[in-house]
Amino acid sequence: MGDHRIERDSMGELEVPSEALYGAQTQRALNNFPVSGQPMPAAFIHAIAHIKLAAARVNRELGHLDEARSRKIVAAAEAILAGHHDDQFPVDVFQTGSGTSSNMNVNEVIARQASGDGVEVGANDHVNMGQSSNDVIPTAIHVSAALSVTHQLRPALEHLRDTIDARAAELDDVVKTGRTHLMDAMPLRMSQELGGWSSQVGQAIERLDSALVRLCRLAQGGTAVGTGINAHPEFAERMARDLSEQTGLAFSPNDSFFASLASQDAAVELSGQLRGLACVVMKIANDLRWMNSGPLAGLGEIELEALQPGSSIMPGKVNPVIPESAAQAAAQVIGLDTAVTVAGQSGNFQLNVMLPLVANNLLTSISLMTNTTRLLADRAIATFKVRHDNLEAPLARNPILVTALNSVIGYDAASAIAKQAYQAGRPIIEVAEEQSGLSRAELERLLDPAALTRGGVPE
Amino acid sequence: MGDHRIERDSMGELEVPSEALYGAQTQRALNNFPVSGQPMPAAFIHAIAHIKLAAARVNRELGHLDEARSRKIVAAAEAILAGHHDDQFPVDVFQTGSGTSSNMNVNEVIARQASGDGVEVGANDHVNMGQSSNDVIPTAIHVSAALSVTHQLRPALEHLRDTIDARAAELDDVVKTGRTHLMDAMPLRMSQELGGWSSQVGQAIERLDSALVRLCRLAQGGTAVGTGINAHPEFAERMARDLSEQTGLAFSPNDSFFASLASQDAAVELSGQLRGLACVVMKIANDLRWMNSGPLAGLGEIELEALQPGSSIMPGKVNPVIPESAAQAAAQVIGLDTAVTVAGQSGNFQLNVMLPLVANNLLTSISLMTNTTRLLADRAIATFKVRHDNLEAPLARNPILVTALNSVIGYDAASAIAKQAYQAGRPIIEVAEEQSGLSRAELERLLDPAALTRGGVPE
Amino acid sequence: MGDHRIERDSMGELEVPSEALYGAQTQRALNNFPVSGQPMPAAFIHAIAHIKLAAARVNRELGHLDEARSRKIVAAAEAILAGHHDDQFPVDVFQTGSGTSSNMNVNEVIARQASGDGVEVGANDHVNMGQSSNDVIPTAIHVSAALSVTHQLRPALEHLRDTIDARAAELDDVVKTGRTHLMDAMPLRMSQELGGWSSQVGQAIERLDSALVRLCRLAQGGTAVGTGINAHPEFAERMARDLSEQTGLAFSPNDSFFASLASQDAAVELSGQLRGLACVVMKIANDLRWMNSGPLAGLGEIELEALQPGSSIMPGKVNPVIPESAAQAAAQVIGLDTAVTVAGQSGNFQLNVMLPLVANNLLTSISLMTNTTRLLADRAIATFKVRHDNLEAPLARNPILVTALNSVIGYDAASAIAKQAYQAGRPIIEVAEEQSGLSRAELERLLDPAALTRGGVPE
Amino acid sequence: MGDHRIERDSMGELEVPSEALYGAQTQRALNNFPVSGQPMPAAFIHAIAHIKLAAARVNRELGHLDEARSRKIVAAAEAILAGHHDDQFPVDVFQTGSGTSSNMNVNEVIARQASGDGVEVGANDHVNMGQSSNDVIPTAIHVSAALSVTHQLRPALEHLRDTIDARAAELDDVVKTGRTHLMDAMPLRMSQELGGWSSQVGQAIERLDSALVRLCRLAQGGTAVGTGINAHPEFAERMARDLSEQTGLAFSPNDSFFASLASQDAAVELSGQLRGLACVVMKIANDLRWMNSGPLAGLGEIELEALQPGSSIMPGKVNPVIPESAAQAAAQVIGLDTAVTVAGQSGNFQLNVMLPLVANNLLTSISLMTNTTRLLADRAIATFKVRHDNLEAPLARNPILVTALNSVIGYDAASAIAKQAYQAGRPIIEVAEEQSGLSRAELERLLDPAALTRGGVPE
Repeated sequence: MGDHRIERDSMGELEVPSEALYGAQTQRALNNFPVSGQPMPAAFIHAIAHIKLAAARVNRELGHLDEARSRKIVAAAEAILAGHHDDQFPVDVFQTGSGTSSNMNVNEVIARQASGDGVEVGANDHVNMGQSSNDVIPTAIHVSAALSVTHQLRPALEHLRDTIDARAAELDDVVKTGRTHLMDAMPLRMSQELGGWSSQVGQAIERLDSALVRLCRLAQGGTAVGTGINAHPEFAERMARDLSEQTGLAFSPNDSFFASLASQDAAVELSGQLRGLACVVMKIANDLRWMNSGPLAGLGEIELEALQPGSSIMPGKVNPVIPESAAQAAAQVIGLDTAVTVAGQSGNFQLNVMLPLVANNLLTSISLMTNTTRLLADRAIATFKVRHDNLEAPLARNPILVTALNSVIGYDAASAIAKQAYQAGRPIIEVAEEQSGLSRAELERLLDPAALTRGGVPE
Repeated sequence: MGDHRIERDSMGELEVPSEALYGAQTQRALNNFPVSGQPMPAAFIHAIAHIKLAAARVNRELGHLDEARSRKIVAAAEAILAGHHDDQFPVDVFQTGSGTSSNMNVNEVIARQASGDGVEVGANDHVNMGQSSNDVIPTAIHVSAALSVTHQLRPALEHLRDTIDARAAELDDVVKTGRTHLMDAMPLRMSQELGGWSSQVGQAIERLDSALVRLCRLAQGGTAVGTGINAHPEFAERMARDLSEQTGLAFSPNDSFFASLASQDAAVELSGQLRGLACVVMKIANDLRWMNSGPLAGLGEIELEALQPGSSIMPGKVNPVIPESAAQAAAQVIGLDTAVTVAGQSGNFQLNVMLPLVANNLLTSISLMTNTTRLLADRAIATFKVRHDNLEAPLARNPILVTALNSVIGYDAASAIAKQAYQAGRPIIEVAEEQSGLSRAELERLLDPAALTRGGVPE
Repeated sequence: MGDHRIERDSMGELEVPSEALYGAQTQRALNNFPVSGQPMPAAFIHAIAHIKLAAARVNRELGHLDEARSRKIVAAAEAILAGHHDDQFPVDVFQTGSGTSSNMNVNEVIARQASGDGVEVGANDHVNMGQSSNDVIPTAIHVSAALSVTHQLRPALEHLRDTIDARAAELDDVVKTGRTHLMDAMPLRMSQELGGWSSQVGQAIERLDSALVRLCRLAQGGTAVGTGINAHPEFAERMARDLSEQTGLAFSPNDSFFASLASQDAAVELSGQLRGLACVVMKIANDLRWMNSGPLAGLGEIELEALQPGSSIMPGKVNPVIPESAAQAAAQVIGLDTAVTVAGQSGNFQLNVMLPLVANNLLTSISLMTNTTRLLADRAIATFKVRHDNLEAPLARNPILVTALNSVIGYDAASAIAKQAYQAGRPIIEVAEEQSGLSRAELERLLDPAALTRGGVPE
Repeated sequence: MGDHRIERDSMGELEVPSEALYGAQTQRALNNFPVSGQPMPAAFIHAIAHIKLAAARVNRELGHLDEARSRKIVAAAEAILAGHHDDQFPVDVFQTGSGTSSNMNVNEVIARQASGDGVEVGANDHVNMGQSSNDVIPTAIHVSAALSVTHQLRPALEHLRDTIDARAAELDDVVKTGRTHLMDAMPLRMSQELGGWSSQVGQAIERLDSALVRLCRLAQGGTAVGTGINAHPEFAERMARDLSEQTGLAFSPNDSFFASLASQDAAVELSGQLRGLACVVMKIANDLRWMNSGPLAGLGEIELEALQPGSSIMPGKVNPVIPESAAQAAAQVIGLDTAVTVAGQSGNFQLNVMLPLVANNLLTSISLMTNTTRLLADRAIATFKVRHDNLEAPLARNPILVTALNSVIGYDAASAIAKQAYQAGRPIIEVAEEQSGLSRAELERLLDPAALTRGGVPE
């Protein structure tokens, strides 16, 4: 004794560490779930605190909770939101599938902090009033994911896009050989290539925004099975309004609480959009890695900033470590999405019982994508140097430039010229001069790589 | 001889079956890719035909193609769209990653059909004018997927939702025991349960619609690498306009052709939404399977229509075959989505070279979901019978009804009553009468299952 | 009438096409499952025929079936195995989850063919004697997959490995710059690089063999739920023996029929090994694509055989179409594996009801990998040409060769030399001569790329 | 100052926390990779320490390292293996794809601990002697995974199997209605049902063992690119031997170091087998959840031990929390496997650069499966109670028992009896008595559920 105190819940008594702010049910969950050693993400716990705070106010408005308890619950929830008790939520991710243990963890911490001065606050009867884990946890998934996307990921992606755009503007006159099927193709400007990345990032943002629409529809008010038993008819609307005020997002009750509890469709959608973003990150990371390849036996188009020695055995080696880190983060997001999809198939009747997994994986993926896209922007895209000589060398010799003659001499004749130039290893313009009947001056105009990046039909 | 004719392309001559409408490049692809034996879906070939038709008109408007050739190309494309030549597109799904073989297949069939009467139409120079496989194929993916979603899948989903809604209306007074964690929970009406499915289907439609926004942005006009080389500056806009007129959808050029060629982000998004729909189908199929389970040793809530003998060894057995078929179709869509995600990570520089796979998998998934949701609606949901006796038996005895007393006697006291009722196997109302201090009449009102499905705080 | 005949089963009568060899239950399945339009693979139907053939013999040995019926069933099964009736098994992949419809399809075709001359053979009572779909279908999955791996995929992989080994032997003296992180690294011989591929293929074969061990354990004999009801106690052993004799593989009854019916663990294992093979194919395909990249602005190490014009707009372009096809086939196998994994999670109690999906996806993946690895061997690896000049140019200048000096001058001193060489763009040997205190002759010996491919500690 | 010291590497100086045992390169990695906040698993770091320890001994045997340095490196590695410095390896999982930062982290900690008393030990020149990150990290993946499977997961799975077997033995006389397609089927004993689980677990162990065969083949000795440059020709063999002695496992050099560095095929295989195990866990967890469903409106076959209050709103509710936790752990393993598969496709030329991800995901999955299968054994399977009354009620009435009459009266006649019994809701034996011509006594013998679980052909 000394180290522990005795707590009790509806199942009986058990020992809880003396200093713990949580109570019996949290302790049961700690005893029951020694699985991963990984607690739920703080963003998820904070979302539950937002809900408890809102509920304390709404229950008072509706006349179900007295002002003293309401105020004290609000204060305790605010302390959690301020990050003061982040170590008091140790329940494992792999817990009961409803997340009841995490809901009770927050209920208990708040009840304990809110009790005192002659006020007794109950975890179930007061903090959880009008709620069930079955609506709190799905709501917390939506709220935490929506907040993390809005305040973490979206700004990081905008920064990535802005960084790309800035480099594109700076590199607008850099012409390079295009590559399709990895083979030399028609030329483009580096600004155009980077513009492709920028567009991808921009539309990834758009896709996240579109998932937010459905993420802002909440389960709160459905309580135990979706009927709203034990919650006031206005509870759902008022909770959504209070949560909107707290967060600045536009939450509303879902059109069916039965769907909200039994499925995780909006989470699957967001996870899918995160996975789509991971594909974008993979594309950019791979392009950077290959552009940086060499220095001698690679493409050698750019030189990424040297951040650390690249090899424990090969002195002087510098590797594209940031794109590699990013590619791995992308792979992980794709994997976490698979798990969310398994979860998304797993609802039965009135509840999906893979909720903590869904919460954890969504928030982990959002965080990984946030951090990796910032690094990609700041330590790879913002800082690479262009190796102009390497880009220019193959440009004018590229037999594929003959494409520009299609409209003048036809595809078959152009093809014959390209093949001859390639087989003889001669500059395309020389062979074209011999074969096409066009003058050197005409050909110089038609085959100018920089001009060809402007598109249009050469005439 | 006799059976074959000789065709030539820029690589030389080869034998083509005499009666084939296609030419040398299609034949090369047939020789090169004996992989799956599965040709590209007709919907994909038709989308290319839409593009060729549009291009013939736009090129004439722009003065690049004479009227005779334009008309004949339009007529040949229309014949393809009418389904007259569906056997003339035998190129394997697992072909060149750009889909060039399929593009040339369509170019060759049109060129051959359009030539004659003194007009020579070239596959590359005329049918493919202003285009590259690199913009045609991504455009065909978007157009075919958008059309299939709009005209096949969406109506099927609306039919599914309507069928669910009709059954829900009919079953609004059927009260059943809710299940969370598969355990007896508070009661709900069957209309509410089905309403959850309906909401899921409705939001799945919404998600598809949101993917269509980005699917309607086209690569056409980017040509070889995204610069638009060999296409008129107005080509992209005019093509989008013509395709919109042909199809009734609102296509427009993407904001970056470089992104359109190098990525398949919109396809990954649509694939993700189809996978989300598959999760919805899985939920509904599993609920139906479990509701139908029994007849004696299962839940026995409904009886699905008997469609075929269920067992080759157990006489008289009837199985939930339609939901099983649906669950497998859902699993397949989830798998095809994984392959699309692999493809979506695979772009390098100016092109993604997994395009035929993307096209095939999207269209296959759309088709699977279309057919399976129609069957689910018509042969499972529309026709099941409710086994009222089985639903009613456990309703009033359910100890969890005590939840309704939370606000009156508190969670802990309610919990003690529930446990005692359960352990003694006694009706909850009897134990509550003894323990709660509430009258029998009061308790009958508070614990009435039907009333409890209306939600609210029992008082 | 004329076109149809009337058939009946335990559910009643229905119309069947006059010429069809199948009966009522097959027709019901055709009516019930218009989902994908794709019938079960022939290899699967043939495996069921192997089982029916074995059962007819075993049932006669055990005295349950008369000789006349046994002989006629055997003959009818042999006709199926000879491929005479492949169009008589049109039931969709997305059918009842037990595959009962396919089992009955085979039972009906055999019963109809075996009846006559005064002998009446019943689909259930005679052809299906001692069996249930619940043991037949899992057995057919194992048998068909084991046969396809053994007779299709394994030989293709051995051919691929042999082809790689032959090229490796031929290219043993070709030295090239190694690449780690895509960056120039220490040199190796092309034979070593190809040897890596060969080892990967060899171990992929080993992994398939290890999956075959568990695939050769059969469900047959478990009948309806695993207890073996309605099958003679020796039925399982005798069936395994007969199937082994028919096929040359070493089948035996599984240690638990309950596991065989309720799970698809061996199928999930095989699918995982096929997916692992797909990763190997992806690695080889990508290496080939990058080695072939250029010709001017890429790595330009090899030139793949030109198989078809590469571009509909860029004349003379040749693309690595076989590796691209292979990479897509690999992606598809990875996707089909995901669906098998969903199926593998879906068993409940005594049966897994995603069996037709499992069968189809395994056999499709085996076939895709068979065909694609043969193409990869014959039309890419066997025929590429090495571009020696491009390989040699960067070899001796590569600053990373300084790694060979680690043991002589230490990592830090070597690193300083490498950096100076790289920054000045000077050959590494020159800078080393100035900085290391070693003689030119010594350095020439220590830094000889060919010698460095032999490994060991330079002294 | 005060808090930090200055360290230097080949790239220059930087600040390192004063008390840190690591040096400059670790610090660079900490600065470069603030991605997940999650360090590499301790099991992985320990495997590197095993390698460093072995290398120090082998290098001394080969005469490349003096005895003093060797001894001090060994001692420092042993301290790491004893877990004394687990907080000194903070480098993020999402780091350089080769894991060089983790290799250098260990090199630096050992070098610092080993230096002193007049001995200077260099991280690169001595601790990393004869090694490269490119062979150390793949070796550490194999060694750590093999050890974790052997010492953590395998014992947990054996415990699970033993626990199942013990319950099966105890419950051998409990007869229940079998379920196929979730529908009532022929009866079986609970021991048979649990025997199915046991067989699944047993074969999962077998599959892990088969993956260990290839996992025990090591990259060590391949050094930078696979040629073994800078390592003695006997280094690989001696290292494998030393690692085998240290660990008790039978390690050997892989047949191709090029394959070992460039691919992660053995890791993909193991990951696939872990995923297969996850499918087994999912099956068992779902069966338990459904068996436990109810108590009134579910299957109600068993009662799982009550571990915590199940609901924050529904008093007295007890949920199957351990199976739910297990199902989520299984889903996560399936997801982590997807990420490993992405990694497995990502090798280029001489290196796969997703190694830290592979290491982390394999070890995480092994740990999740270890912990969850122990909980499943001890807190679900060992402790559930059987609800005999619920099992017995439907047993004898089950119309499907008529299957036992197939061999006596034929499938069609049996089918008619079953249907009539079901439609009339009458016990099957009564209808059979009227219809079959068999006596009551005969039927009682033929239709006895317990007897039917013994299999065989009823006569």
